[in-house]
Amino acid sequence: MERVAIIGSSMTQFGQRDAWILDLLSEAGLECLEDAGVDAADVEHLYVSNMASGEFEGQTGVMNAVAQDLDAVPAYTQRIDQTSSSGGAGIYAAWQSVASGASDMTLLVGGEKMTHKTTGEATDVIASLTHPAEYKHGVTLPSFAGLTARHYLERFDAPRESLAKVAVKNHKNGVDNPNAQFRKEVDLETVLESPIVADPLRLYDFCPITDGSAALMLCPESVAREYTDDYVVISGIDGATDTHVVHEREDPTVMGGVVESGEGAYEMSGRGPDDIDVAELHDMFTILEFLQMEGLGFAEQGEAWKLVEEGYTERDTGELPINTSGGLKSKGHPLGASGVAQAVEIYEQLMGEAGPRQVEADVGLCCNVGGFGNCVITTIMEAAQ
Amino acid sequence: MERVAIIGSSMTQFGQRDAWILDLLSEAGLECLEDAGVDAADVEHLYVSNMASGEFEGQTGVMNAVAQDLDAVPAYTQRIDQTSSSGGAGIYAAWQSVASGASDMTLLVGGEKMTHKTTGEATDVIASLTHPAEYKHGVTLPSFAGLTARHYLERFDAPRESLAKVAVKNHKNGVDNPNAQFRKEVDLETVLESPIVADPLRLYDFCPITDGSAALMLCPESVAREYTDDYVVISGIDGATDTHVVHEREDPTVMGGVVESGEGAYEMSGRGPDDIDVAELHDMFTILEFLQMEGLGFAEQGEAWKLVEEGYTERDTGELPINTSGGLKSKGHPLGASGVAQAVEIYEQLMGEAGPRQVEADVGLCCNVGGFGNCVITTIMEAAQ
Repeated sequence: MERVAIIGSSMTQFGQRDAWILDLLSEAGLECLEDAGVDAADVEHLYVSNMASGEFEGQTGVMNAVAQDLDAVPAYTQRIDQTSSSGGAGIYAAWQSVASGASDMTLLVGGEKMTHKTTGEATDVIASLTHPAEYKHGVTLPSFAGLTARHYLERFDAPRESLAKVAVKNHKNGVDNPNAQFRKEVDLETVLESPIVADPLRLYDFCPITDGSAALMLCPESVAREYTDDYVVISGIDGATDTHVVHEREDPTVMGGVVESGEGAYEMSGRGPDDIDVAELHDMFTILEFLQMEGLGFAEQGEAWKLVEEGYTERDTGELPINTSGGLKSKGHPLGASGVAQAVEIYEQLMGEAGPRQVEADVGLCCNVGGFGNCVITTIMEAAQ
Repeated sequence: MERVAIIGSSMTQFGQRDAWILDLLSEAGLECLEDAGVDAADVEHLYVSNMASGEFEGQTGVMNAVAQDLDAVPAYTQRIDQTSSSGGAGIYAAWQSVASGASDMTLLVGGEKMTHKTTGEATDVIASLTHPAEYKHGVTLPSFAGLTARHYLERFDAPRESLAKVAVKNHKNGVDNPNAQFRKEVDLETVLESPIVADPLRLYDFCPITDGSAALMLCPESVAREYTDDYVVISGIDGATDTHVVHEREDPTVMGGVVESGEGAYEMSGRGPDDIDVAELHDMFTILEFLQMEGLGFAEQGEAWKLVEEGYTERDTGELPINTSGGLKSKGHPLGASGVAQAVEIYEQLMGEAGPRQVEADVGLCCNVGGFGNCVITTIMEAAQ
């Protein structure tokens, strides 16, 4: 089967934006059309990753509005929701549309508008993705993160500072990302002395609430060559669920969806953890970066913290730079956009377009986590030969 | 490329249900697993068509909950929203998942829970799918239907009774559907004397607000043969948008999305309008049945009403039975379920399992309309040879 290529990308300014969801989606969509050099009339499928425009803005049907805004009618369109992994699910859907032969040119736009809500209101929408059996007892995603972090640190004898170092690293990377929400370094003390949110996790262990969007253009490799000599291929992609009721999992430090989707993506691509040169992991909470490093085979169980301590994941000096974009932590986390923006970073790294964030990379990976690992999509991308 | 088969289906009781969305989705999912004879552990992808569980019930992440409920973890899951055509979009997504090789067994479940809301509340959620440029002026889907119906009747010199006959026919068919919301015949006078909603359309020109769900099991044809000798294949499927701002369309009686998606599905299947033996059309409003008959080539523009008058679309005596299930009109319209339930009816017709509704059919078609034709999916299904 012919490989699926990515021939263009875009990402808007993340942060607090004076724009509603349709504006954000169209902004990324237009920029991606331009970046790919594709005419809107040639877009056959248009996928919109968005978790909750109805809940956040009382506006649904945004995919149809974007199709018209971009002048892409009669392109087929659909909204994709996989909660916080809606962006990764969008990549999988766009990949399927091309691989199945249904579309020879698929534009994927992911976005969310959240900051006009209070933190409490936004958190309520996000919490509605958890199982009522847990939600009605007051358990939310941050509390799962706190409980898991405590368990991890105690069980694996890891220092609290190792978690804080994830935040420090990702903030440092984000300084060089012009579209990041927070372009400022933070030091260990700032993280360790920030207000407690879910003990032992503190404010700087969490990603912010964000507006923003990102986009990718996908097509069969044969079509890609009509547009450009330089492109990226998706060599492996898979998605998987874990139990929706989080407390039913056997081992709270193992995210089954990460393991399963990673294995699927590795198998499809013929790659393994050692082949990955750069990765974007879903650092909605610092502890998640450890769990994904371990679930994806970059570290043995209980040992990711050591790699972070050793600088293994640093951008300019580490063997496996993780979250060169700044991650969700400093770049921000507009739900439907985040998985797409991860792939935009890997695309730019593989194309050599990452500017001051550039690392040496031929093979990259993104891992987009929905809920607390309730559903996960792993994507492996490679520079075309 | 190998064809995509349907090897099982289910549909719950439609109507006012004392169950929340997760119960409804799981009910259809479990019945479909049983109908197909497939073990939940063998489901690789699980798609959930649902427009608005967050808006209707404050509950998101339902696809992950269903995966656990059905014991299908770690199957990959995703929610699909294409407003009122979410079900059809789900069929297209499920088809793509199989045709791309991503999944060898895909369960599609569509459902919506709406009746716990007042009609006003439910209508507000539905109206949020329209473009704000029109919505803020008070235009809603029923008003589009009224304006279009008035234009159609005047321009094509069609009698008001011809629209009412669509409602009479579909209610008559619904009597024989045990899962229909309204199993009662209505006569012409009842339709013509019911309260005006959007002149000239009256209450009985509209579908009701409904709870319910439906499901389909899709797999490659080679896998289908491991389970059964009798199955159905999707021989053609396509989706297309029209302008999201409805008043910008050149001809209000032509739904571009119907025409485009129909042409795509015909081309893919090598079939034409004359090959279709039975069809389920999206009769959210009676006028839509005319517009789809014309857009899909069953009638010339402005002449569908004549075919209805002549009895051409009657179930037991017509040449092309339309909405043998009772249609959205009598069966009900739980948004995310409707497109799936259309295909369930065609599946049962092609399998010879439609009981008292059975017609002679080897090739069937469903047309699922989102918004006011903002996005449309047309699917052609055939009994396997």
